[in-house]
Amino acid sequence: MIINLPEQTVERLSQYRRILLNYQYLDHAYIFSHNLARVLKTKSGTVRRDLMLIGVSGDVHKGYDINLILRKISEAIDGDTPENICFIGIGNLGRSVANHFAAGNGNLRVVAAFLFDQHQSIFPDVPEYDLTMLSEVIKQQNILICALAVPRDYAREITLLLVNSGIMGILNFTATQLQVPKHVFVEDYDMVAKLEKVSYFMKMTKNHLQAYD
Amino acid sequence: MIINLPEQTVERLSQYRRILLNYQYLDHAYIFSHNLARVLKTKSGTVRRDLMLIGVSGDVHKGYDINLILRKISEAIDGDTPENICFIGIGNLGRSVANHFAAGNGNLRVVAAFLFDQHQSIFPDVPEYDLTMLSEVIKQQNILICALAVPRDYAREITLLLVNSGIMGILNFTATQLQVPKHVFVEDYDMVAKLEKVSYFMKMTKNHLQAYD
Repeated sequence: MIINLPEQTVERLSQYRRILLNYQYLDHAYIFSHNLARVLKTKSGTVRRDLMLIGVSGDVHKGYDINLILRKISEAIDGDTPENICFIGIGNLGRSVANHFAAGNGNLRVVAAFLFDQHQSIFPDVPEYDLTMLSEVIKQQNILICALAVPRDYAREITLLLVNSGIMGILNFTATQLQVPKHVFVEDYDMVAKLEKVSYFMKMTKNHLQAYD
Repeated sequence: MIINLPEQTVERLSQYRRILLNYQYLDHAYIFSHNLARVLKTKSGTVRRDLMLIGVSGDVHKGYDINLILRKISEAIDGDTPENICFIGIGNLGRSVANHFAAGNGNLRVVAAFLFDQHQSIFPDVPEYDLTMLSEVIKQQNILICALAVPRDYAREITLLLVNSGIMGILNFTATQLQVPKHVFVEDYDMVAKLEKVSYFMKMTKNHLQAYD
C-alpha cells in the first residue's frame, strides 16, 4: 500500500496537504505547481516531481485537482488506521499540533502528553501523565511514535525506556545523538543550528542595508 | 567579513561545530570528513565541500585540524559581537539551547524569555517577562532575533509587533505563514510535517519487519 518515497518528498507532501487544506476554504478546485512552490520556497519542478511520484499529473491550463492531490497524499503517507503518538516534555509548541490532528487532519492522534519538571497542565484536550507512567501508557495505548523534549542528561535513559516500551519513531528535540536499535527511526531537530542560521542571514541583510545607507 | 554561503551549508557548519565541541573532550586534534558525515547522516563529499567554502582543507592522512575548523566556522557564521536573542512562548525546549549559548558556545545569547499563557518559570538563568513587555524589552536590549511559539491565532498580531520593535530574524514555530517585510528572515519549523515523516518511515520499517516475521 505504502510506496517507497525519499525523505524530503514525504516531508513536502505533508506540507502540501497542510497548505491545500487551508486553500480549500477559498473554494478553489485547482492549483498550479508554482503556487504551491512559492508558499514553500521551493521550485515548481520539485512540486511536479513530488506529485508525479504519488501518481498525480496536472492539466496545463487548469493546474492540479486539489481533491485528487489530497486523496493521493493520504494514500501515499497515511496508514489505513490512525496512528497514536505522544508528547514527552513538549510544551506550548505541541498544542497547535495536537489541535491540528484532533480536527481530523492527517492520520495521527496525540493520545498522551507526559509532563517533565512542571506541574501545570498545558494541553486542554490531551490526557496528561507523570513521567513515571511512560512505559505503562505507551504499551496500553499502543503508541509507536513520540516527540521527545527532555533535558540532555535524561535523554539516554528515557530513550532506552521508550524503545523497550515499543516506540519505533522519535522526533528528537533533545540536542543529543540518541542511541537506538536499527528498527527505530529518529528525526533530529537542532534548534541551535536553526537559530545560528537565522542569525547569519539576518546579519547578511543588515550588512546589505547598511551598505546602502 | 561574512562570506556568502548557501542556507544548508550554514546550518551544517553550525552542526559541525556542535559535534566538534563535544569531540574535543576526547582529546582528538584531527577528524576525517566521513566521521563528521556519519554523525550528521550526510555524505563526506558534502562535508568536504562545506569546509572548502570556508577555506579549510584537510590532510589526506591526518584529516582536518579540529581547531582550525572551529576557528573558520566562527569567522564564517558568527558576527564580531554577540547577538542577543529572545524566546517567546518557547517552553522546556529552549532550556538546553539557552544553556548551550550561556556556556559560551557560538555567538548568540538568550537575554529574555516571554511567557505565554503560563505563570510558571521555565528558564532558571534567563530573565522572564510578561508578553506585554515584548516591545519594550526588545528595544532596550537591542534584540534582533527571536524564536516564536505562540498559538496560530496570535501569530499575526505578535509578528507585526516584533517587526515594529526591530526584530529582523524569526525562528517560527507557529505553523502559520508569517507576513513580514523583505528585510526580515523567517525560518519555519513544521512539526506536523516532521511527525508525519517519522510516522511514514516507522510504518515502512514495521511493514518490512512484518514481511519477514
